[in-house]
Amino acid sequence: MVSEFRTRRLLEFEDTDTAQIAHFSRFYVFMEQAEHALLRSLGFSVHMEWEGRKLGWPRVAAACEFLKPIRFEEELEVHLMVRRKGTKSMTYAFDFRHDGELIARGEMTTVCCAIAADGSLAGVAIPQPLADQLEEYSG
Amino acid sequence: MVSEFRTRRLLEFEDTDTAQIAHFSRFYVFMEQAEHALLRSLGFSVHMEWEGRKLGWPRVAAACEFLKPIRFEEELEVHLMVRRKGTKSMTYAFDFRHDGELIARGEMTTVCCAIAADGSLAGVAIPQPLADQLEEYSG
Amino acid sequence: MVSEFRTRRLLEFEDTDTAQIAHFSRFYVFMEQAEHALLRSLGFSVHMEWEGRKLGWPRVAAACEFLKPIRFEEELEVHLMVRRKGTKSMTYAFDFRHDGELIARGEMTTVCCAIAADGSLAGVAIPQPLADQLEEYSG
Amino acid sequence: MVSEFRTRRLLEFEDTDTAQIAHFSRFYVFMEQAEHALLRSLGFSVHMEWEGRKLGWPRVAAACEFLKPIRFEEELEVHLMVRRKGTKSMTYAFDFRHDGELIARGEMTTVCCAIAADGSLAGVAIPQPLADQLEEYSG
Repeated sequence: MVSEFRTRRLLEFEDTDTAQIAHFSRFYVFMEQAEHALLRSLGFSVHMEWEGRKLGWPRVAAACEFLKPIRFEEELEVHLMVRRKGTKSMTYAFDFRHDGELIARGEMTTVCCAIAADGSLAGVAIPQPLADQLEEYSG
Repeated sequence: MVSEFRTRRLLEFEDTDTAQIAHFSRFYVFMEQAEHALLRSLGFSVHMEWEGRKLGWPRVAAACEFLKPIRFEEELEVHLMVRRKGTKSMTYAFDFRHDGELIARGEMTTVCCAIAADGSLAGVAIPQPLADQLEEYSG
Repeated sequence: MVSEFRTRRLLEFEDTDTAQIAHFSRFYVFMEQAEHALLRSLGFSVHMEWEGRKLGWPRVAAACEFLKPIRFEEELEVHLMVRRKGTKSMTYAFDFRHDGELIARGEMTTVCCAIAADGSLAGVAIPQPLADQLEEYSG
Repeated sequence: MVSEFRTRRLLEFEDTDTAQIAHFSRFYVFMEQAEHALLRSLGFSVHMEWEGRKLGWPRVAAACEFLKPIRFEEELEVHLMVRRKGTKSMTYAFDFRHDGELIARGEMTTVCCAIAADGSLAGVAIPQPLADQLEEYSG
């Protein structure tokens, strides 16, 4: 069992706002970027073909609590953990840290979907080799 | 009692992503923009001076559920309601609609803070004239 | 002959950065939004079907000079003018104004393209009814 | 003489749009991020204190030509070169490459400014130790 997946990111100028801290909407982008990096680390992608079908992972919910501000050029450590692994869906939990301190805490749920030619989506089982690897991250 | 505050917005090209729908992180920005428009409609601003102090409204939490996709050049109606009005904090609820259909549902909590010269923040009571007007939006 | 197409926009919190002014990258987005609004005002869209083909307008160049800063909740007036109208391409010029003062000045060139099923692009003549209307904006 | 400064970046989902390629406005952000990384590599920052004054580097112009599209999860190599080094200003040139191919080509001019307590800006000479190091990158 792997406890968590970590990425790091420097706070960029465009991440900040007039309050001179990271804009709160950026944390949702950072959650998604960590999820995508996790999938890549397992040899998959959030936009992929699988057994002749296009798969995508639309987000169905995301929440974040903001505990401390973080500023331009400060380093953000993103800790991703699997909170719930379903047949078709994943719920990830995120701790955002700077210098060891907890900055924010988030959660995001995504659903594995087949994308039809007309763009419509239908939930499908997570491909088994990916599901097996994600199991490793489940506590 | 006023039931809700409404704004409208056309989905712009930059709001969309490779899935050809609005990127989920944009909904948090739209919540903030609706809150700012509400404050302006009441003669206030999210960044203002009040009795010699600079006030700001950092977000402490925001969550959103995504029910249906919305695409480029479709119109989004944002309905803001006051869910809880505290002495120092506000919790807003949001319904996002397109053509009458519910697209997403969000919630955001902000805290009224005095900003010291060194940038540090301390929670303070919402200015009374603003608190009185926000009361109007509370169910 | 119509001299120009105008849109207005309030500077939003997310448009600003740690320098407490609009982030320079936003002006390129504002140029695009004005171009899209112009096309809509003429009954067209930047992403449309025409005579059985999907058309798009990729940008081939964009430049901007920044003369004065603009801040949160200030109003930006965007003035779009047609600088050059080709058979397949358009070059637009933009003046950005606040309170009558010139804030920034930009230029953007886009090419009318047919989008093949595999996503590849080929320049094509601007649909005649649109070309005729854009002529109206040419000095 | 150092010929250029390089950074790399994976195209993220939020960088893309409905055309399923990187949104053109992102290239201006990538130019800025490369400039900031260059300054950091030299021991400086785009927002710094120097001899008791706050310095900033507002952008006065930026232009980009777009030659080929780049897509989600493709790697972008950013090559920064110093095109002109003035007493108070810098003009950088940028080549954006993917798999060896030129994707886009940009240029950005910034001015070293002292930021007064009221937020007003005045051009000042680039701090000598930084100017000396930037000289290294000038052809």
